[in-house]
Amino acid sequence: MINEGKLLVVSGPSGTGKSTVVKLLVEKLDRLCLSVSATTRPPRESELEGREYYFVDHTEFERRIACGEMLEYASYNGNYYGTPRDKVEEWLGQGFDVLLEIEVQGAKKIKDQRADAVLIFLIPPSMEEAEARLRGRRSESEETLQKRLAIARQELEQAQYYDYIVVNETVEQAVEDIRSILRAEHLRYAGMKPFIAGLKAVPNSAE
Amino acid sequence: MINEGKLLVVSGPSGTGKSTVVKLLVEKLDRLCLSVSATTRPPRESELEGREYYFVDHTEFERRIACGEMLEYASYNGNYYGTPRDKVEEWLGQGFDVLLEIEVQGAKKIKDQRADAVLIFLIPPSMEEAEARLRGRRSESEETLQKRLAIARQELEQAQYYDYIVVNETVEQAVEDIRSILRAEHLRYAGMKPFIAGLKAVPNSAE
Repeated sequence: MINEGKLLVVSGPSGTGKSTVVKLLVEKLDRLCLSVSATTRPPRESELEGREYYFVDHTEFERRIACGEMLEYASYNGNYYGTPRDKVEEWLGQGFDVLLEIEVQGAKKIKDQRADAVLIFLIPPSMEEAEARLRGRRSESEETLQKRLAIARQELEQAQYYDYIVVNETVEQAVEDIRSILRAEHLRYAGMKPFIAGLKAVPNSAE
Repeated sequence: MINEGKLLVVSGPSGTGKSTVVKLLVEKLDRLCLSVSATTRPPRESELEGREYYFVDHTEFERRIACGEMLEYASYNGNYYGTPRDKVEEWLGQGFDVLLEIEVQGAKKIKDQRADAVLIFLIPPSMEEAEARLRGRRSESEETLQKRLAIARQELEQAQYYDYIVVNETVEQAVEDIRSILRAEHLRYAGMKPFIAGLKAVPNSAE
């Protein structure tokens, strides 16, 4: 008997180091699959079809929405972004855990549909650290950076929609924390019920 | 700022190897304190005051109940058993996690009083394994052993009152699972709220 996998959603303000954590997490946990989003925005030079995103045109995306093929979707700057339903449900059914790295609006939609989805909000250890991370990776004006930081601080409000909060003090610790959360969620009574039923069913004399 | 510790309750049918798991757990987790129960039953030869139990007389136990000094208590075979409130609350307040190894009736009373208590039900990997463990440690008649096993199987019903189910396949794995549960519970949004508030409060220019 295969227990269904867990649907894991990871979000977090910019400057949290989310993508590094997600990358290591997928490397380290062998029962975890990363869902690749679909988008209508054009691919950047370094991006590969099916790695960063599935790139589809506007008409096709709207057809998929209409046919219920998107688990969640949102529109930013005139482009659609969303999670294709098929792979996610296939993997979960096979007992794999599935990770979505999506924004808070998408996360809320997932939770509405699947109450057993596990929502994790990743935050920086301090705003100074978030600032340092943003400075380290971008060549943008001081004004843009301050704007990003102000948005990141606002985004902390969204933590309230999440089940768990993980502080990205170090990538390793954050990955370890998410691993613990995932393990704990698998040990919840609801998921373990079939195992207990099996234990009770075995006749006492089965030797 | 100290976050309050977690109150952890571990129960399980006989033959599960509960006490071995609890012993290793307390050894391995340095922020975890083991609560010692009070009882009115007389001490056995090998038992020490304050190690296995606090031994008190009937009148004193009933005084403690009347004064609200017991977090939970129950009566078995004419003797009281219960959890003294003072130490548990002191440790939790200091940020230590506190472990209670108690029966299902006590566990339910704890959960009624403290919804944030974490209830873990430890079960054997199979009834054959439970039987082997009971055989290994006791010199009792086949009839008594079969009676114990029948009770253990009935006790599996009680799993429904618990938050998490841990299978004691090996002691190390069970301890690791409980550690994961404890870590996850510490990362729940409710407990992390003060940290997030702190992040938001720091002025952006704090360098």
